[in-house]
Amino acid sequence: MSDRKRSWLVLTDGYLTARNAKTAHGVLRYARDDIAAVIDSEHAGRDLGDVAPGLHRRAPIVASVEEGLRYRPTSLLLGVATPGGWIPQHWRRMVIEAIEAGLEIANGLHTFLRDDEELVRLAEQRGATLWDVRDPPADIPLFAGRNLDSASRVVLTVGSDCAVGKMTAALELRDAAERSGRRSEFVATGQTGILIAGKGIAVDRVISDFVAGAAERLVAEADPEADVLIVEGQGSLWHPAYSGVTLGLLHGSAPEVMVFVHQAGRTAIEEPPYTQLPPLAEMVSTYEQLASAVRPARVACVALNCGGLDDDAAARAAAEVEDATGLPAADVLRDGAARLWAAAEEALFGQPA
Amino acid sequence: MSDRKRSWLVLTDGYLTARNAKTAHGVLRYARDDIAAVIDSEHAGRDLGDVAPGLHRRAPIVASVEEGLRYRPTSLLLGVATPGGWIPQHWRRMVIEAIEAGLEIANGLHTFLRDDEELVRLAEQRGATLWDVRDPPADIPLFAGRNLDSASRVVLTVGSDCAVGKMTAALELRDAAERSGRRSEFVATGQTGILIAGKGIAVDRVISDFVAGAAERLVAEADPEADVLIVEGQGSLWHPAYSGVTLGLLHGSAPEVMVFVHQAGRTAIEEPPYTQLPPLAEMVSTYEQLASAVRPARVACVALNCGGLDDDAAARAAAEVEDATGLPAADVLRDGAARLWAAAEEALFGQPA
Repeated sequence: MSDRKRSWLVLTDGYLTARNAKTAHGVLRYARDDIAAVIDSEHAGRDLGDVAPGLHRRAPIVASVEEGLRYRPTSLLLGVATPGGWIPQHWRRMVIEAIEAGLEIANGLHTFLRDDEELVRLAEQRGATLWDVRDPPADIPLFAGRNLDSASRVVLTVGSDCAVGKMTAALELRDAAERSGRRSEFVATGQTGILIAGKGIAVDRVISDFVAGAAERLVAEADPEADVLIVEGQGSLWHPAYSGVTLGLLHGSAPEVMVFVHQAGRTAIEEPPYTQLPPLAEMVSTYEQLASAVRPARVACVALNCGGLDDDAAARAAAEVEDATGLPAADVLRDGAARLWAAAEEALFGQPA
Repeated sequence: MSDRKRSWLVLTDGYLTARNAKTAHGVLRYARDDIAAVIDSEHAGRDLGDVAPGLHRRAPIVASVEEGLRYRPTSLLLGVATPGGWIPQHWRRMVIEAIEAGLEIANGLHTFLRDDEELVRLAEQRGATLWDVRDPPADIPLFAGRNLDSASRVVLTVGSDCAVGKMTAALELRDAAERSGRRSEFVATGQTGILIAGKGIAVDRVISDFVAGAAERLVAEADPEADVLIVEGQGSLWHPAYSGVTLGLLHGSAPEVMVFVHQAGRTAIEEPPYTQLPPLAEMVSTYEQLASAVRPARVACVALNCGGLDDDAAARAAAEVEDATGLPAADVLRDGAARLWAAAEEALFGQPA
């Protein structure tokens, strides 16, 4: 990749509107990079803004890498969760074409490009970069609290369950913070966030002893001029499969303010063993209690994901959450994040926005 | 290694009585294997029982591998934490001698033998096994709660800090449970425990997403005839560097009863950033609250490490802890574990031992 700003050729072939393209959707919606084109033969010839208006982005949809190259991309994105995490054969041919054109290949799949000897050799020959987004750096230290001296204030999104919108809330809060005049950085901890931010560490792929150290490093290495770092949370303290990642990230990032993210109406974890969630106020106080092992922290507001509800039902759900927690609640995609950011800002800086 | 019961040649050269030999000490004290001999040129010619009476084990101390081989060991143990985790050069020569004699090499260091091409080649030639104890299996699944159907009851030792005696408490409780007539298994989650048990997974070396899955697998694959599985805990919910491992292990092993392990008088984590510990009763209730995300669990008793205190001070410390928590408290090394086990047994089976 040259020194040009990244310009994505997004490969979603056959999955552009499918749920397992959520990494591609995240980049298309939130990345501050350019989008050169999307490769999706099903919708080729149309514009992304017409096929997927919810992404709020216009870009040509093309049928092939060759056609996409006309739009001068710097990078090919593999941002669809494929069955088994492997790269399908017909995609592999497209990856080879992109490498031959000298493009950076950004791979959000579980399978790493660096383990594919042919692709590695070809990339070396052509000077193309292979970026396995989930692959953590090898030199992460143990947590030692070096980030506690950071001049930037730290906000972390935390949640009741996985996949409730912690990354989306963090990004919308970052935008709201910037609109209010605060220099802000989104700190990415998962593959979609990393692709959006252009950097970060997939903390769930780090050896468990080093999760807190990875979070510490992300905070310590963020923009030192930022007023606010908004860290993307992972998992849930009540999701048994991921709770360790959640707590390691909570302690390692050492937030001063948290934003609690919840799916309206959810009362149990959505995966086996489908454990019951405690009442909202108890979840909020548990995050506050555990975070405070490192430094005092409080939950300032609730980002309530009301996907699937109509506006009336969403308003009722938000009112119920406000009543149960005593905190402002809003759906960042429906209501915007300004009110939630105002609550976070007051908690951080002691004054309303 | 043959089908013979494991018989250890324990390499501690220069470190037999040093604190960084704690892995070797654990094996010498608790392993149910035979101890063929200890290699330690400083004390060669004497008996282990005279040099380190606290280990409660007799074994000859020799000056070399060659001399140790006379006692017909099956396995050489590298159980001293060396500076940087590397194998010193003069030890490497002893490892080569042991491989040439066909011994299994059990390595508790951070550096893996499997990364040393010369040792791997030599071991293949001689039919010797290299066992990197910290190296987790590659095929650990995500947590899915399969262990919740286990007929064995599950006890986990949990703690206020690292290195307070969670492994020791688990082993002493296992012995007490067996003396009370309960078929029991110690489930190892750290390198010393694994060497003692002959199996286990070092959960802090597992990729963070799979810690709970590793704990689930350990429980699911334990002796199906056991009445009780006593799982070795790791870290502390209040130690920021390791709390993620602690919670992943808590949720993954899904204990029904916990034993809280604490160093008498400790009020803060002993490593940076030296975070303050909450009051004892709050630590106990936090473990109960978080464990209950998977299934109801309670702390039955407190294993109070009174190392460094005289008997009067230890008795006072135990009385204070009993007063603060309402739970029986005892130092398993000073008082034995019978009373603590009786409390755990009553909590598990609803009847006094």
